[in-house]
Amino acid sequence: MTTISVDAATTGERSALLLLDRVRGVVGPRLREAVDTLPGELRRIAAYHFGWEEADGGPAAGPAGKAIRPALVLAAARALGGDPDPAVGAAAAVELAHNFTLLHDDIVDEDPTRRHRPTAWAVFGLADALLAGDAMSALALRLLAEDPHPAAAPALARLADCVVELCAGQQTDCALERRPPHEVSVAEVTVMATAKTGALLGCACALGALYAGADEEAVAAMDAFGREAGLAFQLIDDLIGIWGDPGRTGKPAGADLMAHKKSLPVVAALASGTAAGEELAALYARPALDAEAVVAAADAVERAGGRDWAQSQAAERMASAVEQLSRAVPDLSAAGDLLALAEFVTRRSR
Amino acid sequence: MTTISVDAATTGERSALLLLDRVRGVVGPRLREAVDTLPGELRRIAAYHFGWEEADGGPAAGPAGKAIRPALVLAAARALGGDPDPAVGAAAAVELAHNFTLLHDDIVDEDPTRRHRPTAWAVFGLADALLAGDAMSALALRLLAEDPHPAAAPALARLADCVVELCAGQQTDCALERRPPHEVSVAEVTVMATAKTGALLGCACALGALYAGADEEAVAAMDAFGREAGLAFQLIDDLIGIWGDPGRTGKPAGADLMAHKKSLPVVAALASGTAAGEELAALYARPALDAEAVVAAADAVERAGGRDWAQSQAAERMASAVEQLSRAVPDLSAAGDLLALAEFVTRRSR
Repeated sequence: MTTISVDAATTGERSALLLLDRVRGVVGPRLREAVDTLPGELRRIAAYHFGWEEADGGPAAGPAGKAIRPALVLAAARALGGDPDPAVGAAAAVELAHNFTLLHDDIVDEDPTRRHRPTAWAVFGLADALLAGDAMSALALRLLAEDPHPAAAPALARLADCVVELCAGQQTDCALERRPPHEVSVAEVTVMATAKTGALLGCACALGALYAGADEEAVAAMDAFGREAGLAFQLIDDLIGIWGDPGRTGKPAGADLMAHKKSLPVVAALASGTAAGEELAALYARPALDAEAVVAAADAVERAGGRDWAQSQAAERMASAVEQLSRAVPDLSAAGDLLALAEFVTRRSR
Repeated sequence: MTTISVDAATTGERSALLLLDRVRGVVGPRLREAVDTLPGELRRIAAYHFGWEEADGGPAAGPAGKAIRPALVLAAARALGGDPDPAVGAAAAVELAHNFTLLHDDIVDEDPTRRHRPTAWAVFGLADALLAGDAMSALALRLLAEDPHPAAAPALARLADCVVELCAGQQTDCALERRPPHEVSVAEVTVMATAKTGALLGCACALGALYAGADEEAVAAMDAFGREAGLAFQLIDDLIGIWGDPGRTGKPAGADLMAHKKSLPVVAALASGTAAGEELAALYARPALDAEAVVAAADAVERAGGRDWAQSQAAERMASAVEQLSRAVPDLSAAGDLLALAEFVTRRSR
């Protein structure tokens, strides 16, 4: 296992990184313009969350998000023969919606850090962070409401539905965390992860398809592509939540284990019927895990087959994603950017 | 001071109560239909918040909100010669948006009760209540996104803007609470109250005007009418927050004083330059107020002129509201319902 830097990246990875860079260049200004319409303190909190400003309002050099979702919107539009330019507002809306959910998820999960920095609620307090997230959510849909493009109305309905699904996914995630380890099934966690992560990636692809004027079938296939790729993404993210790497993601290794997260590899390990699965259950039964116990838990997940399972599941989901994609874009050579993004997402921790 | 029941109400009040009843009968089913689309636990929390269900999911007999905002949407449409029926979805959207902000405000303010019942976060926990509010916010805008009426798109943009303003108002409210009493001006609190309360009442009236096909000027005048009436409403609500009455509103007398709220009558009293104002400042300097101190604080607000000021301000704001209304509806006899609602709002505690 090695981590990727731009230098060490394969050609496909490098092209995805360049694409994401380009997307940030195009969507970033639109996003900032929208956030700048927020009043006073709410704007400041949003700008901090995006990594544009420090807590004191000074400029920040910190990296913002990867912009995978806006990249999917534009790449999906292009793959279907559409002009991506009119979809830039929709791409910004998707990124805003994503970041609103991150900001609220940090509150809900009581996460102290994100992207190497204290979370917004940790800096500005729960109340102000919650309200800034609310404003970002309304602003995301507002961006589409003011868009005169004929795709904007159905895009808005889809994004609003998606926000509801994201909330349901996060709620289910919290509910599953409260259940005893042995009472959570791989199927339940898969459904939850699809809602929590797949829904917005699917929505991003569907919005791109809508802006390209695609028919309903192609829009649905694009949504399914994003959902399957999203589940692959989640599986990889869950692996990172156990084995690292903090240098790239800002998420410390073992964080999910420390938080007793019933992530996909953990639940697969718990349900494995192996001795290592029992060891893991015993560790998860402790009220708190110290550093040593976290290492033991990670080892138990691996020996119980949770790591291998998650990696092969990720590959399977990607295959299914490509199958869906080929329904929307029969000549896959037109979908190079989408495939590069999907591959980037599933390979980034290897 | 007497409280109103339907029996004791004046003719105008009785007609407003009957109107609100009728509106609940028309908008309620649309609202329930929308909330029923929410997944699992999020639906349950919303249904509890609206007073339709008990915490265990059983039916509740408890009163839901007064439905003043949906009533304003429909009455504004009617006052401008429009058919209120097509605006029922917009009315439901406004009520959903209102209730999402209430649910989140209860979290932000750590309020334990609303409408005689434990708040949603107190019953379901902060995380689930926060997520249910998020879903309700998206659902409110979703209702307008699926509405084929030509007014739905501008209505959606207005409602989204309004949600941002509501969040800013609530954020400013919290920020003012943290400032020392003498550093908060009546002007600041007025701006905050306009954002927090006036904005949504103005938006409700503006949406009704949009659905009646009114021109921009009439829409703006209707918005201003609602904002001014909203500020009157807030002044009255602030009076209730000090002097009661819990029997009608579920808000215990003295609640705002106990919470050190810098409500309009309180700030007016603090800025009065009177000895009673100084007494109030000394009481507010205490970390906590017991029941006796709350009574003393209420008395100080009254002697400092805060109560009279708030009542006369409410009357002035209502006069200004009626002036704005007459710009949108030159023959005020067509605006009977709107006037009855505005009067009801400002008289309900007398």
